[in-house]
Amino acid sequence: MADNKKMVEAITSMDEDFAKWYTDVVKKAELCDYSGVKGCMVIRPYGYAIWENIQTDLDRRFKETGHENVYMPMFIPESLLQKEKDHVEGFAPEVAWVTQGGQEKLSERLVVRPTSETLFCEHYAKIINSYRDLPKLYNQWCSVVRWEKTTRPFLRTSEFLWQEGHTMHETAEEAKEETLRMLRVYEDFYRESLAIPAVVGQKTEKEKFAGAETTYTIEPMMHNGVALQGGTSHYFGDGFARAFGIQFTGRDNTLQYPHQTSWGVSTRMIGAIIMTHGDDNGLVLPPAIAPIQVIVVPIAQHKEGVLDKASELVSRLSKVARVKMDASDNSPGWKFAQYEMKGVPLRLEIGPKDIENNQCVLVSRVTREKYFVSLDELETKIPELLKTVHDQLYNKALENMVSKTHTATTLDEFVDISKNKGGFIKAIWCGDSECEDKIKDVTGGVKSRCMPFEQENISDVCVCCGKKAKSMVVWGKQY
Amino acid sequence: MADNKKMVEAITSMDEDFAKWYTDVVKKAELCDYSGVKGCMVIRPYGYAIWENIQTDLDRRFKETGHENVYMPMFIPESLLQKEKDHVEGFAPEVAWVTQGGQEKLSERLVVRPTSETLFCEHYAKIINSYRDLPKLYNQWCSVVRWEKTTRPFLRTSEFLWQEGHTMHETAEEAKEETLRMLRVYEDFYRESLAIPAVVGQKTEKEKFAGAETTYTIEPMMHNGVALQGGTSHYFGDGFARAFGIQFTGRDNTLQYPHQTSWGVSTRMIGAIIMTHGDDNGLVLPPAIAPIQVIVVPIAQHKEGVLDKASELVSRLSKVARVKMDASDNSPGWKFAQYEMKGVPLRLEIGPKDIENNQCVLVSRVTREKYFVSLDELETKIPELLKTVHDQLYNKALENMVSKTHTATTLDEFVDISKNKGGFIKAIWCGDSECEDKIKDVTGGVKSRCMPFEQENISDVCVCCGKKAKSMVVWGKQY
Repeated sequence: MADNKKMVEAITSMDEDFAKWYTDVVKKAELCDYSGVKGCMVIRPYGYAIWENIQTDLDRRFKETGHENVYMPMFIPESLLQKEKDHVEGFAPEVAWVTQGGQEKLSERLVVRPTSETLFCEHYAKIINSYRDLPKLYNQWCSVVRWEKTTRPFLRTSEFLWQEGHTMHETAEEAKEETLRMLRVYEDFYRESLAIPAVVGQKTEKEKFAGAETTYTIEPMMHNGVALQGGTSHYFGDGFARAFGIQFTGRDNTLQYPHQTSWGVSTRMIGAIIMTHGDDNGLVLPPAIAPIQVIVVPIAQHKEGVLDKASELVSRLSKVARVKMDASDNSPGWKFAQYEMKGVPLRLEIGPKDIENNQCVLVSRVTREKYFVSLDELETKIPELLKTVHDQLYNKALENMVSKTHTATTLDEFVDISKNKGGFIKAIWCGDSECEDKIKDVTGGVKSRCMPFEQENISDVCVCCGKKAKSMVVWGKQY
Repeated sequence: MADNKKMVEAITSMDEDFAKWYTDVVKKAELCDYSGVKGCMVIRPYGYAIWENIQTDLDRRFKETGHENVYMPMFIPESLLQKEKDHVEGFAPEVAWVTQGGQEKLSERLVVRPTSETLFCEHYAKIINSYRDLPKLYNQWCSVVRWEKTTRPFLRTSEFLWQEGHTMHETAEEAKEETLRMLRVYEDFYRESLAIPAVVGQKTEKEKFAGAETTYTIEPMMHNGVALQGGTSHYFGDGFARAFGIQFTGRDNTLQYPHQTSWGVSTRMIGAIIMTHGDDNGLVLPPAIAPIQVIVVPIAQHKEGVLDKASELVSRLSKVARVKMDASDNSPGWKFAQYEMKGVPLRLEIGPKDIENNQCVLVSRVTREKYFVSLDELETKIPELLKTVHDQLYNKALENMVSKTHTATTLDEFVDISKNKGGFIKAIWCGDSECEDKIKDVTGGVKSRCMPFEQENISDVCVCCGKKAKSMVVWGKQY
């Protein structure tokens, strides 16, 4: 137990300093490392394995909803970026510029893609001619660059990995359906695979994506009550199509502009996992995306038969879960702490006495509850317990979100909650961006997260100006 | 047959103009499209699906040999690139430079990675401390940029997708073993999954990678006799480790430098597939990496029961192969030509008469042989026939390579073969790079491909200068 304690002591407590706790976990769980390039990170094997599991899961969901993957260039000529006015205004201030290629100065500067709407549109202009060519349902997995001033691993980095879906549709209705469909895919993924509950809804005009007509968002709450924009889905109307001259011959033989969507999630989700589920013992991973789901720790492994039995279990259980054994010379206590730090959902302990009794001990990473399970029943019990761990995580996160969500009907109340309680604040808003600005000012940074699909009748008037209600907004500080 | 012919006529014949045939296939099979950025391509869904299958297959082989994936930044600070002298000399002339980030001019220029040895070394310097930390067996899937003057889709592009393995080992022997192990992984992959035979061996001093001690290569021959460097594996010794100050405490408690390898293959392999297996009807895909392995074409599909039966087959056969049905209004002849152009390995035709006889017709894309198969036997016959198509492809490519490989013992003979026959030339070489230069000059571009592992005793003296033999070299023009 001594070395167990030592390892645990090595990270800062969440309550003491949440930001430092976060970077401690990132480092101690070996998720990523800093690089020599400002704001760019090295994603280490354990962190990347989480991303691979996320990718595999999401990619299946995208393909099941009819999407195909493509790869677009990483460079955007300056003139191409400028074709859609709002878009270039939103992104130009924060991009990296390539000005020289080989020995020659470029005649036109290139942007390292911050997002690829413009590239997809340039390609769509060539391949969309008839309504028969629609819909086009493309997705891309790649890295993008946004020149950030202050950066934090996974949460805000100058380069990050993501997927960006870009689709074109015959009608506005179809495009709007797609926008909501992909938001639901994200919501399902967060709930089913990341065990993360969230508020979902529409962004206000002020907070929507550069160039979009409507932006929808999924906003989970981190353990400390701060929001994280977990994924967005945008409806563009035909704005880009007009700017890029994308037209098709419709069913009625007239030339029409297609309607567009885009949607994306990124490695930032790894930050959401850390800050939603982590605790003072380190990372806690939802089973669906954990690189190791069950860590087998032999007890008194020098005794005859222990390692053999443990190895036998690993090979048996590899058919139902991602299982690994640690047969190193480290003490069991050290191993317990190490795999707690790495967030492995289940620990399986097996020693001489267990073998005698034809059983083993399984321990949940979330609650530390112990389950004594017959060795004959492991193939059914392990998937069940992984499901249990998933539910424990989801419920804990939901409780946190519910307990840190408050309602305000006056500005005083709003400011008081933001100062003394934090978390999400539900309040009615008039629809005016001046009230958003004022709320941000008086609270020192609380912004509208979204207008949730699930509206509540809290009040008839704006919490800020007292004018007629437009909708309920969930407000909060954000990463 | 009329529209079948029309579609076939639309591409240039291989014998008439191989280069034009190549770009016709790339375009007509919808593999990629040009973008507005010089030398960068859009990889379209069908082309990208091939790359995804290649990735999945290779990634499994890498993981089976103990490798883990990571992600390094896409930018390299100029000072980092300069740490290894030979390396920077090799790459600096052909890189893209980022000079501005957001609103500010960068104090140090950044290179968009052309390859990532320097980034891996910077990270390894931090995480390698003891022999217990070794080996480190990392791989990365990403895109890289090399500013090419003349580009061709897949074969030579300014940006391309690839994997790069970078490993560190305790001893030179272990690193050398790894270098050869990964070359064998590539060779197996080319043979087993791409159905492409190749010459494998060591590059000469002149042709080796910038900064490497030894470079091994896999060199398949394209249909027209031209070589394509299909993948390389490098042994670095401890050169980079010294330049980057990577040291570990050895078993004997002394400070030592680790020994390094790197190895990579890229989207260029798609070019190799096109040019090895393609024919005047278009692309021909090896079954292992074909996005569609069997295309089901219903005959007289308006007749009762045909589409139902065809759909039933598709759902049955999806368990044993990647199967798709084309139930569009296009004629069967049109569909035949379309999926031949796309290189689908097997076509399954089913019409009213077939259904009556409880059979269908399967057609090989390679030989156009027809196989009449009972509907009850399809689950076993289709995997068998996919294997047959694979063997047909491999044998055809091997025959091509054997028939276009010649032996020369004098320079006159060498020049004569290179002028009148092309292909690979086996000839003895003294080991002097001046002879490589001379051979390149007098033949207008024939270069040493490699010193094959399988040496033959062709002559005792260099084909060029007549001095004492060092080894047999395979020579050829290259893409």
